[in-house]
Amino acid sequence: MPKLITTRTRIADLGKPRIVIIGGGFGGLELAKGLEGLKAQTVLFDKYNHHCFQPLLYQVASSGLDTGSIVFPFRRRFGSQQDFFFRMGEVTAIKPEENYIETSIGGVKYDYLVLAHGASTNYYGMKDVEEHAMPLKNIIDSIKLRNKIIQNFELALLTDDAELMNSLMDFVIVGGGPTGVEMAGALAELKSHVFPRDYPELQLGHMDIHLVEATGRLLNGMSDVAGEKALQYLQNMGVKVHLNTAVKTYDGHEVSFNNGNKLMTRTLIWAAGVKAHPIQGLSEEAIGRAGRIKVDEFNRVKGYDNIFAIGDAAIMEGADKDFVNGHPQVAPPAMQQGRLLAENIKRIIHKKKLKPFRYKDQGSMATIGRNRAVVDLKIPFKIKTQGTIAWFIWMFVHLMSLVGARNRVLVLINWLSSYFSYDKSNRVIIARPKDGVS
Amino acid sequence: MPKLITTRTRIADLGKPRIVIIGGGFGGLELAKGLEGLKAQTVLFDKYNHHCFQPLLYQVASSGLDTGSIVFPFRRRFGSQQDFFFRMGEVTAIKPEENYIETSIGGVKYDYLVLAHGASTNYYGMKDVEEHAMPLKNIIDSIKLRNKIIQNFELALLTDDAELMNSLMDFVIVGGGPTGVEMAGALAELKSHVFPRDYPELQLGHMDIHLVEATGRLLNGMSDVAGEKALQYLQNMGVKVHLNTAVKTYDGHEVSFNNGNKLMTRTLIWAAGVKAHPIQGLSEEAIGRAGRIKVDEFNRVKGYDNIFAIGDAAIMEGADKDFVNGHPQVAPPAMQQGRLLAENIKRIIHKKKLKPFRYKDQGSMATIGRNRAVVDLKIPFKIKTQGTIAWFIWMFVHLMSLVGARNRVLVLINWLSSYFSYDKSNRVIIARPKDGVS
Repeated sequence: MPKLITTRTRIADLGKPRIVIIGGGFGGLELAKGLEGLKAQTVLFDKYNHHCFQPLLYQVASSGLDTGSIVFPFRRRFGSQQDFFFRMGEVTAIKPEENYIETSIGGVKYDYLVLAHGASTNYYGMKDVEEHAMPLKNIIDSIKLRNKIIQNFELALLTDDAELMNSLMDFVIVGGGPTGVEMAGALAELKSHVFPRDYPELQLGHMDIHLVEATGRLLNGMSDVAGEKALQYLQNMGVKVHLNTAVKTYDGHEVSFNNGNKLMTRTLIWAAGVKAHPIQGLSEEAIGRAGRIKVDEFNRVKGYDNIFAIGDAAIMEGADKDFVNGHPQVAPPAMQQGRLLAENIKRIIHKKKLKPFRYKDQGSMATIGRNRAVVDLKIPFKIKTQGTIAWFIWMFVHLMSLVGARNRVLVLINWLSSYFSYDKSNRVIIARPKDGVS
Repeated sequence: MPKLITTRTRIADLGKPRIVIIGGGFGGLELAKGLEGLKAQTVLFDKYNHHCFQPLLYQVASSGLDTGSIVFPFRRRFGSQQDFFFRMGEVTAIKPEENYIETSIGGVKYDYLVLAHGASTNYYGMKDVEEHAMPLKNIIDSIKLRNKIIQNFELALLTDDAELMNSLMDFVIVGGGPTGVEMAGALAELKSHVFPRDYPELQLGHMDIHLVEATGRLLNGMSDVAGEKALQYLQNMGVKVHLNTAVKTYDGHEVSFNNGNKLMTRTLIWAAGVKAHPIQGLSEEAIGRAGRIKVDEFNRVKGYDNIFAIGDAAIMEGADKDFVNGHPQVAPPAMQQGRLLAENIKRIIHKKKLKPFRYKDQGSMATIGRNRAVVDLKIPFKIKTQGTIAWFIWMFVHLMSLVGARNRVLVLINWLSSYFSYDKSNRVIIARPKDGVS
């Protein structure tokens, strides 16, 4: 059977300005929504056919949520939007001089190009870590991590070798940002509420959860009190937090750190940072720190008139006065940039003056387990709170941020059911049977 | 990194009778539940760590339901059941003379062995069909089929070749039993309600759904009126039904039939029948028609005292007076056999007389789309009905049969949301990006 490789994107020429958006993450999605009603053609490219709500990936990985609750098919949102075209494909190169991009499914011309392709996991050049660690950036990562966590316990039952059993039951999470902190909290909940019922044959006391952070505190980017409280919550839940510690090597069995310490684990969860995807074809002067694309205060890429970049892929230095070194690589700046850029593209087409981007930092938050969260709120009012109230705020904000009413209802039901049953229901291994595990 | 192959099942010797169950389908699950409270050790083996509600697999494949709503982890049900042991592994051989089984994760002795390992897809020896067709027997099959259906449409957008475009948009379903009929109805709903919104660029008139059945009617095993009504419903929905037609060859592109006809399709969905998994080690006289294991009226395997078989894997000939040729390979006989066998094993242990199995046929049903189903009810009262009432009965029975209250609520919400929105929300491709498709 011959492989069917398409070389044409087959996007109709409507005789209107064509805006091509690369990536349907938080930024790209808001931009595409904002362009509705404009007399223009919007084309969205994404590797996947769905938007993924990344902040809750850790809950899929820890069996709290089902995959379908946090993904949303692009066509479900945009199917009926006038002059909207979705294409599933990956961009391989830009040819700015021809206003043209090449993708895995063929090329297309653009009038305006927006790079919203996000960032990928950063292993800081450590090839062994990249080969053996588990990232947590997309829905497939989260299914694989869930499979692995549960499979480890099924295998731990089968061995006489105490060291092997421990290395199957021990988890090392690298990165003390929200993903690492939340994943550590979720594993601690599995340890205290779920696994003792599931695995009465195992001594859960042997399950160790290590959280490793290279700097001297957790949740950098949040307030000191949030970082300290998160540390205290995690330690109360039995998580072993190692600050000022960085990974040097990992071979799938043993991880070694810069302070000479070593840990045996079959599961190294990597939440230590992101880096930009390089895209071929932009001039060198447009590429900034960590591969991010330099943009001006209108998110216009340095040196180009009709190419823009938003979200994690972009870096806006010196323009936004409270964020002269660029904005944090989280969802809110991407969404706000997407929304403003939609307005600015309309302004360009209508030959009006552009509005500069000013990030409205609404604050940030992280949850550590039932009834425990840390919240630094800035809008609508400044408040720092931790504990149960913070936990309700966290839940409310995340529920409301999900795309689609059905997803909100499903997540709410899962959360309610987990809360009252102390259970995480989705602990299924979705994989073909294997005899052993590597 | 060396492969970790375990050779010991490490099932504790409790000094009590040990009942080993192979397979946690409908039969095995009921049996394991029924053994609760018995002074015995129950060991359940399954290839997967979850029970799968197979009657709704077609709804996962057609984007109506999420995977998590129809699977249920065994440990969630049995984690706290006294003296219950679950092991994820596949049985490779039985050694009846040693009361011993070998599995992919090592061996174990048994006092009583129950073979409840079900049946697998039957391609009737056609290797080309087996290689290229899509089965629908487990959760991974359903995810792969969902991926394929949606990916086909994403690819159909990209081609100029009318024949290729048609072969991507056309579906051939083989087998006019409940799975085939229900899958055809679900695809017809995608065609009329969902895909026109998702793919305004495609002419949905080009999407053909063919249902192929080797006999002269649909839904064999149900009443004539049910079969005729199902045919009429499907034809009204635009499904092309080919009766008295059997597949001869399929190379992934073109399917040929015994009447000389041919169809071009990239997706052949195979729901044409099942066959027993062979298990090494039983005597030849124990193996009956289509590889099913011959059992007496107590589900005891012919020639053995302490080996039993239930459900699709077993065939009880001549014992149950209304079913002298054996029971249909569907869920209810498996469940009833599982429940009775639990009682009979207790009776054996307590040296009481065994009860013979008599199948209480409650009837059968199939759904063909919104407001359309066919129901032949026998218990609690005899009634044949088709249409909206039948559809409500179908939904009620399937909801109640699901394992777990949470799953019931999730399925109900999905159904309600689909019903009012005419939408099927889970149309996500869960796969790594690929440039083309084979």
